[in-house]
Amino acid sequence: MGFQLNKLVIFGVGLIGGSFALALREAGAVREIVGVGRTAGNLEEALRRGVIDRAAVDAASAVQDADLVMLAVPVGQMAVVMQQIAPCLGAHTVVTDAGSTKGDVAALARQYLPTYRSNFVPGHPIAGAEKSGVGAADAGLFRGRQAVLTPLPETAAEAVERVRLAWQDCGARVSEMSPENHDEIFAAVSHLPHLLSFALIDEIASRANGEELFGYAASGFRDFTRIAGSSPEMWRDICLANREALLKELEVYQAQLDRLHAMLEQADGAALELVFSHASAARNKWIPQKNSD
Amino acid sequence: MGFQLNKLVIFGVGLIGGSFALALREAGAVREIVGVGRTAGNLEEALRRGVIDRAAVDAASAVQDADLVMLAVPVGQMAVVMQQIAPCLGAHTVVTDAGSTKGDVAALARQYLPTYRSNFVPGHPIAGAEKSGVGAADAGLFRGRQAVLTPLPETAAEAVERVRLAWQDCGARVSEMSPENHDEIFAAVSHLPHLLSFALIDEIASRANGEELFGYAASGFRDFTRIAGSSPEMWRDICLANREALLKELEVYQAQLDRLHAMLEQADGAALELVFSHASAARNKWIPQKNSD
Repeated sequence: MGFQLNKLVIFGVGLIGGSFALALREAGAVREIVGVGRTAGNLEEALRRGVIDRAAVDAASAVQDADLVMLAVPVGQMAVVMQQIAPCLGAHTVVTDAGSTKGDVAALARQYLPTYRSNFVPGHPIAGAEKSGVGAADAGLFRGRQAVLTPLPETAAEAVERVRLAWQDCGARVSEMSPENHDEIFAAVSHLPHLLSFALIDEIASRANGEELFGYAASGFRDFTRIAGSSPEMWRDICLANREALLKELEVYQAQLDRLHAMLEQADGAALELVFSHASAARNKWIPQKNSD
Repeated sequence: MGFQLNKLVIFGVGLIGGSFALALREAGAVREIVGVGRTAGNLEEALRRGVIDRAAVDAASAVQDADLVMLAVPVGQMAVVMQQIAPCLGAHTVVTDAGSTKGDVAALARQYLPTYRSNFVPGHPIAGAEKSGVGAADAGLFRGRQAVLTPLPETAAEAVERVRLAWQDCGARVSEMSPENHDEIFAAVSHLPHLLSFALIDEIASRANGEELFGYAASGFRDFTRIAGSSPEMWRDICLANREALLKELEVYQAQLDRLHAMLEQADGAALELVFSHASAARNKWIPQKNSD
């Protein structure tokens, strides 16, 4: 495969940005990769590991002549970066991001990249986010994973196509939906479970006998609470960015717990078994239980 | 190590009972192992795999001259098995079990093994229960795991010691507590998480777009919901057996979700971050996050 991208600029060369760079380089899909970031040490490590070809100090000049700009920064920095680059984006430069929420990013692009909205393609690669930093970057991180693109109504088809090809070069399966649909789906299958897991650990760790309780916890509890080890700042931002959809999901779940509470209170074994059977069948259909687990 | 047990009788030669047999045999701690079960095919497989030395048809006669009887049957069958064996237990025979709840088993023993309560030692090995059947039995299942013994006030110290030694021969770390304390602890770190995981999957699978939602779920959701693939019957029984402690835990958790709902509704990022930080620190202190996950 020849180069599709002459110049790729990555803001935030961490796990996601770094893995995107490594995957595209491995695929032979990019000629030059420029990294921009707030932490000099991280950019030096990215250079040393060959993740980027050079580190840029000035965000605005870095994006000149870029074919693709990837904003892999925390959502809290997105507005600042957009404002920095907006004056220097060329007409042929496509901008995308890798944030976990999309309605908020679409709104920011409307506000801060007003003349470049047709070249902005919000995106979300579905890959584990418990690790962080360029040290964890991996050319295979997105292989077989999904990348969801959520173009704005005004986004140009060619811009979507360029970002789609890049993700496909990373080995990802690409799907498209609206930012709103994306945020509803991920409120259910990602944001709510994180909230529930954080909630359980916070509550148990607050008890006088919290240490004793952790001491008796087994593999079920370990897996159920793995996501509670995720970044507090990142998840605060995600919860706030997707507040409305998450509140709706939380309320649906609270109603479900009310139902289960009533079943327990009435010692209604048949009703409990029905819920558990339905759940177990659906879970095992989704991912067959492995004996080697 | 010489034999500690001349004759071990196992009711329910599945994952737990079979692994107990294999581990004690591997440790050279038992001379003869007799299996008793409802399913002929399972006992034949246990014989073929060398898990047991012989299969007994008559429960009562099987236990004669036994040093140790392990009741590894579902809690729903416990009363029947106790009634069958009670008339044939010798004064030197120690009886133990491997059920996930202990208050109910202690109560059954008081009712159905009235003259043998000093020789009855309720126990609970903390080992994954997603697999089942003798085909999954493994001599190393309990290695490094915990086995909790919950003797009754009337249980003899020698009986506890015999069961403790057997679990130690399996490689388990043994601890002791009251049945009530056991059930409170496991309501928090095992029964509630199972209920929460079943609840989430049942609710999502009930939606018209359930399949689509599962299609976008990633590794966080996968791990959070692994325990929802567990046996519905077993978990119905556990929830009913430990109903009071579980209801208490559920109510504490519902109150915690009410708090988080309020934080979200008020868009109180600082409060959310405090909960997430506390949880994340506690989770990572308990099990440091691995980069290789």
